[in-house]
Amino acid sequence: MLKQVLIGVMCGTAVLTMGILLGHYGIQKGSTAPSWVNEVAQDVDENLIEKFLAEVDNIQIQESLRTLTEMPHMATTAGDEKTVLYMLQRWQDPDTGLDQAWREEYMVYLSFPDPSKPNKVTVVNPSNIVLHMAREKEKTYPPGQEDPTVVQPYAAYSPAGHCKGKLVYANQGKPDDYQLLNQTLDLRGTIAITHYGGAGRADKAINAAPYGVIGVLVYTDPLDINDGLMSDINETYPHSWYLPPSSVERGSFNTHYGDMLTPYLAAKEATYRIPVENITGIPLIPTQPIGFEDAYVLICKLGGKAAPPSWQGAFNCTYNFGGPGFQPTSGFKNSDVKLDVDNRRELKNSSNVMGVIRGGVEPDRYVIYGNHRDSWVHGAIDPSSGTSVMLEITRVLGRMVRQGKWRPRRSIVFASWGAEEFGLIGSAEYTEQYYAKLSERTVAYINVDISVFANATLRASAMPSAQSVIFKAAKQVKAPGLVSTSVYDNWIRYSNRTSPAHGPIPRVGFLSGAGSDYAAFVHYLGITSMDISYTYDRTKTKARIYPAYHTAYDTFDYASKYIDPGFISHQAVARTAGNVLIRLADSLVLPFNCSDYAESLEDYLSTALVHFQDKLMAENITMEPLKEAVAKFRSAATHLDQVIQNSDLANEIPLKVRRINNQLMFLDRAFLDPLAFPDKYAYRHVIWASSDARLPTFPGLADAVTDAMSSGKTGSWRKVHHHLSILSQAIEGAAHTLTDVI
Amino acid sequence: MLKQVLIGVMCGTAVLTMGILLGHYGIQKGSTAPSWVNEVAQDVDENLIEKFLAEVDNIQIQESLRTLTEMPHMATTAGDEKTVLYMLQRWQDPDTGLDQAWREEYMVYLSFPDPSKPNKVTVVNPSNIVLHMAREKEKTYPPGQEDPTVVQPYAAYSPAGHCKGKLVYANQGKPDDYQLLNQTLDLRGTIAITHYGGAGRADKAINAAPYGVIGVLVYTDPLDINDGLMSDINETYPHSWYLPPSSVERGSFNTHYGDMLTPYLAAKEATYRIPVENITGIPLIPTQPIGFEDAYVLICKLGGKAAPPSWQGAFNCTYNFGGPGFQPTSGFKNSDVKLDVDNRRELKNSSNVMGVIRGGVEPDRYVIYGNHRDSWVHGAIDPSSGTSVMLEITRVLGRMVRQGKWRPRRSIVFASWGAEEFGLIGSAEYTEQYYAKLSERTVAYINVDISVFANATLRASAMPSAQSVIFKAAKQVKAPGLVSTSVYDNWIRYSNRTSPAHGPIPRVGFLSGAGSDYAAFVHYLGITSMDISYTYDRTKTKARIYPAYHTAYDTFDYASKYIDPGFISHQAVARTAGNVLIRLADSLVLPFNCSDYAESLEDYLSTALVHFQDKLMAENITMEPLKEAVAKFRSAATHLDQVIQNSDLANEIPLKVRRINNQLMFLDRAFLDPLAFPDKYAYRHVIWASSDARLPTFPGLADAVTDAMSSGKTGSWRKVHHHLSILSQAIEGAAHTLTDVI
Repeated sequence: MLKQVLIGVMCGTAVLTMGILLGHYGIQKGSTAPSWVNEVAQDVDENLIEKFLAEVDNIQIQESLRTLTEMPHMATTAGDEKTVLYMLQRWQDPDTGLDQAWREEYMVYLSFPDPSKPNKVTVVNPSNIVLHMAREKEKTYPPGQEDPTVVQPYAAYSPAGHCKGKLVYANQGKPDDYQLLNQTLDLRGTIAITHYGGAGRADKAINAAPYGVIGVLVYTDPLDINDGLMSDINETYPHSWYLPPSSVERGSFNTHYGDMLTPYLAAKEATYRIPVENITGIPLIPTQPIGFEDAYVLICKLGGKAAPPSWQGAFNCTYNFGGPGFQPTSGFKNSDVKLDVDNRRELKNSSNVMGVIRGGVEPDRYVIYGNHRDSWVHGAIDPSSGTSVMLEITRVLGRMVRQGKWRPRRSIVFASWGAEEFGLIGSAEYTEQYYAKLSERTVAYINVDISVFANATLRASAMPSAQSVIFKAAKQVKAPGLVSTSVYDNWIRYSNRTSPAHGPIPRVGFLSGAGSDYAAFVHYLGITSMDISYTYDRTKTKARIYPAYHTAYDTFDYASKYIDPGFISHQAVARTAGNVLIRLADSLVLPFNCSDYAESLEDYLSTALVHFQDKLMAENITMEPLKEAVAKFRSAATHLDQVIQNSDLANEIPLKVRRINNQLMFLDRAFLDPLAFPDKYAYRHVIWASSDARLPTFPGLADAVTDAMSSGKTGSWRKVHHHLSILSQAIEGAAHTLTDVI
Repeated sequence: MLKQVLIGVMCGTAVLTMGILLGHYGIQKGSTAPSWVNEVAQDVDENLIEKFLAEVDNIQIQESLRTLTEMPHMATTAGDEKTVLYMLQRWQDPDTGLDQAWREEYMVYLSFPDPSKPNKVTVVNPSNIVLHMAREKEKTYPPGQEDPTVVQPYAAYSPAGHCKGKLVYANQGKPDDYQLLNQTLDLRGTIAITHYGGAGRADKAINAAPYGVIGVLVYTDPLDINDGLMSDINETYPHSWYLPPSSVERGSFNTHYGDMLTPYLAAKEATYRIPVENITGIPLIPTQPIGFEDAYVLICKLGGKAAPPSWQGAFNCTYNFGGPGFQPTSGFKNSDVKLDVDNRRELKNSSNVMGVIRGGVEPDRYVIYGNHRDSWVHGAIDPSSGTSVMLEITRVLGRMVRQGKWRPRRSIVFASWGAEEFGLIGSAEYTEQYYAKLSERTVAYINVDISVFANATLRASAMPSAQSVIFKAAKQVKAPGLVSTSVYDNWIRYSNRTSPAHGPIPRVGFLSGAGSDYAAFVHYLGITSMDISYTYDRTKTKARIYPAYHTAYDTFDYASKYIDPGFISHQAVARTAGNVLIRLADSLVLPFNCSDYAESLEDYLSTALVHFQDKLMAENITMEPLKEAVAKFRSAATHLDQVIQNSDLANEIPLKVRRINNQLMFLDRAFLDPLAFPDKYAYRHVIWASSDARLPTFPGLADAVTDAMSSGKTGSWRKVHHHLSILSQAIEGAAHTLTDVI
């Protein structure tokens, strides 16, 4: 029996084994799945995002900021070089560095004051006796610790020049300001004093020159920056965040972006440079910024008629036009203002620092995250608040990569741009040098320049398709200082709109200007971009911008005392922007919503119809092709949304998700037309190009109609029709990109 | 016992079953491979290519050609519409059609003679008596069967105009021809007779106008077309392929391509059109082509000095310059030539017919194959020889698709372009309308216009990267009429060069002109393109082109008797081009060789160095950046070749082969710079743009240097430097595209 049992068991075992072998090897399951089948289908890992959010540290941000702001680091100075080395050190750190980091240099055209001949603004009487001299440098806090590397306040790219003339007050230096002034006064030979705001820096001088004005001064009126107070010295920094009387906003006085000698070409040593006399968009007359303590002295002594109420500022005197010149009753009677500007233009080597984390599945798809590194002085807020946020993101992600815990699906490129302050130069040269590659492969560009203007609420500007991923990220981050409120919920309280599709949502701005390094990505390359920061509670301050902007007071001390004590808003921005970054890099389907783009186009269209349709009809120009193009875009977007929803993309052929992602990625590229704006080829995106018309609608159309209305010429209406065709074709092209592939 | 056995068997069966189930489900094999894993790795199927080659049928080509040539089918005429319907019928055929076929219309600016006021060329004496009248229409063969739809010979886009003047002979109407003539004669008020060749059609009149010439005649000299014979009527068609004395080459007299009223915009009804007076590149003075029988009468009676030997043609008389005017001893003494041109320009609807086979794996990758459909008259060779080849390819492939036997990996788009003869209009409008989509997705464009010029040898022009796939295809096709020789082996006998990499190979031409519909794909879109045909044995004929080109004799009869009896050269072209097409559509790795591109760039560079380096050095312009760019391109190409060779792409993650294919596909796109040629924005490819310099080197550089050498101005050397930077940056950009992704 035992034997039988044994035989039975043995037989049974043999049969079972045979069965197992048969079952395993004998029956085709299809072939074995290669190891990459799972990898290719992986979506963003929410646990990883949680981990990232937890690890972003405010103190790390604070310490990075401290290091970055040790020295003034104006572009191409020794301080700048120090920050280059610091970035490289951080990104090559064995424990928290990126896969690779390196520097790239461009030889770019910059403008500096001459330290041996400081620019001067003086009041001189007819006997050439100096009655007043404007302060050459801002006061130092704490006093006595003067830093020779703090650059004298100046107007970069203002020509050198020496001139003397009667002073006039020209408000903000807008075209209509000079027009009004010119109705009362002969402006020939005068020097105009203007205040910041209303017009671009360079425009204050460019607008002046045609009237014969020979020099321009610029200052910051306390009305615009110190919430209306003609602030006492004890009410301003270092006693508050407000602008001290001696403080001066520096800046680049140009209107185009990128190196001005090498348009559309990367500024390498042997690159062709246009003749200096062919440069456009910079002042033709000497220009110099001064502090409001000096502006006060000048303006309150001006003679002539009183300027209109809208021109009055915070000084405790009436702002007069100028006689031209000063009141005969003032100590400055018959005196001139003398302007001595000795700015020098130089070719200098400026570095971008680049770092990458190589993508594991789609290394040929880039998510680019960048900020400039150069400042005017210590640049704690502008730009180091953004750089320290970027460094915190790379620290946390770099560690995950170095520990082998994570590799993004797509490649991430981090960029620390050089020479932004002089005209977004580092980023523009980069896009020129790598145009083809970037255009083919870049999924998105995230810009975080000034990360914290103020600590009230998130602010974001973006292409409409990127709105949803910013919202998603903002919902997962706690608002700084608020226990149970998300950044999103806090944001919607401060700034919101009602979307036909989504109801009430935070208002996301557009990237139509060239205010930071996103410009080349948006306008030249057509890459879906976004700009993220924390900003003001507008019920609490009307300041044009945080008061220390571009002054010697934008320091670590200022930032940590008055902008973001504890660096928790910095932390919130790092968490939000980093979350967006991870989603862009890791999502299976790119988190872009093309229907949100359709909504913006429809908004633009309805504004255009309201403002332009009748005028165009009167000129026999139909807007039907534009309407049809927008309708086609909407229907293509709806269809693509359905395809995405109805597909099981994690299990279908991976080339299908790649195809859909290409449709989403190339959407903004389709809006480019390099010939759309013949007077500004660096602007190619027909939806977001800059515009003078200040209407929330298609910029080229708005500008062309404005021009046609004011000139009334047949040719100018032809230009309207021409641009309408360019625009309609581009929108249709974008619709084709979203439509099924054949 | 039976029971025990039964129990034993049952138990055994149960155990076995359990084992099988355990083995099958219980043990992980990794997961099961999804069905698409094999599909995504599939490469081109050589058996399918064999089958395709076997099925391509010469008689089918012959019959398609017969149908296509039944009526004259000049663009937008009733005959053209008939061919539209025929294409649609073929491509929608239930058994041999494509997945989809449709028409797309553009409203384009064309030029026609007025049938009620035929253009006239007469000789009139001082009393206004007509001494000679040029034939208005070509003779009909067989006689008496006049077809009213045969368009009168004319110069499309010549302005209407009536003028009378003394005749002069201006050779080919090149700039130096008029310059020489002008040294002897006062050309003001004269009418110039020129012959085809040497200069573009429009240029003969454009070059004349500055000298005061008021009208231009053009004819084909028998020297250039009939192998030197002043052929007797019995030696020409219908007795041979040679040009009969009454025959006239029609043509479009313009220099740009695409609809001339809507540059860079698809010519839809509401599209903006430039004012007619802003059109450039067309004759400003009346121009008319005539047959050589009339040219003989005019030229042999001309007075004045004898023209130089190089100006003499095949007529049995001395070609004189003209007095101006005729010899006093001739019957035409003191007579004028009178030119009455009544061409009308009209907006007409022209159709492209489009057809697609949707790709199974990568539908968002397009291989486009096209030819124009419109002719001047019956157009048997130009363009119907190409259309009948295309129809044979679609017949064979369409049947495979309809039978479910094949679906290409990538999508194939077939195009039957409209209005090519007037300036490549249909294809240009298409590329303008679908710019974004085509730019993102198109792998290659294959053009087969005139498929058989003559039956001696293959001819191909292409981007260098496409050379290898053409060779591969040509090796698999038998040369027509030769039993054991391939198209490739036959080709290399007729035209060859020695490549540093490959040794002796057939010579592949470049696509630097705008001779057919590849122009917009090459120059505007930067798509890797090729143009394929069968052509002459140049030891047997020196004819500029097959003699019936653009005449009323380009008929089915002519084609089947004198160009390709039996249609076996057509068949060889269909096989070769179809083979290339299948390889482009089905290969796992795109069959593009980027190292062959490097070889061409190195050739261009060495020519540039030989011709330009010293001149540039003298102007302090270094060519180092160009050398470095070409070297970077070479090294990137070598590296990419190695990556391809060292990868097991059929088994690796499919996104890797996609990535490599993108590098190869976007290679030509990287050479585009829309601002590279500010006087011709339709040319954006810095390597293949048209050039006046006739040197095998970088076209913009060659033209800029030529211009600088002749003008000697500083500004013109700046332009040389500027273009050198543009060129170097574009080549570096292309190298970046080939380099590893980060």
